Amino acid sequence: MLQRSESLDPVFHALADPARRSMVERLSRGPASVSELAQPLEMSLSAVMQHLQVLQESGLVRSEKVGRVRTCRIDPQAMTQAEQWLNERRKSWERKLDRLGAFLAETDPNKER
Amino acid sequence: MLQRSESLDPVFHALADPARRSMVERLSRGPASVSELAQPLEMSLSAVMQHLQVLQESGLVRSEKVGRVRTCRIDPQAMTQAEQWLNERRKSWERKLDRLGAFLAETDPNKER
Repeated sequence: MLQRSESLDPVFHALADPARRSMVERLSRGPASVSELAQPLEMSLSAVMQHLQVLQESGLVRSEKVGRVRTCRIDPQAMTQAEQWLNERRKSWERKLDRLGAFLAETDPNKER
Repeated sequence: MLQRSESLDPVFHALADPARRSMVERLSRGPASVSELAQPLEMSLSAVMQHLQVLQESGLVRSEKVGRVRTCRIDPQAMTQAEQWLNERRKSWERKLDRLGAFLAETDPNKER
């Protein structure tokens, strides 16, 4: 069970920072250069590059350099994997609640028969 | 934009560890004691307590001690919030792709008129 979702470690780690989430938010609206990503963040270009590296290592973002411009874009697979993990846990928890509700209704002493 | 999702920092941080995800996975199937959480993890009870504290501080899990037994359960709000954040980013990215596809189809020189 621990091994199966190992690749989620770097994804959730990358998402645990507000600057990196802001970069993902920007990229979900379309590709952007590193300077475009840096613009709303009030941090140095080198700090942005470090965050970008974490995002790339997690698989959430990929980038390509053409001439002097590095263009970044979302790689959706890692995001979908993280979303699915959360979705499955939530559904499992809701099913548990449903079964509990059904059990309580079934064993309700005030229930009309 | 950075402030709005600040409470997601500890949630994603908590999920970035396979042992903590395993605990959330177990709890999504129903409440459990600390020893039940520890059982499949091959780690000391004190290590499990530390992971539990991270999960509790993130809001993903809450626990209650009755007598000598601490019972842990999922608190779904934080999980839903993280899932929604990912879902919105993915949808935004898919809309962008759809618009790009429509634009390319519209401007296709081979398109029959």
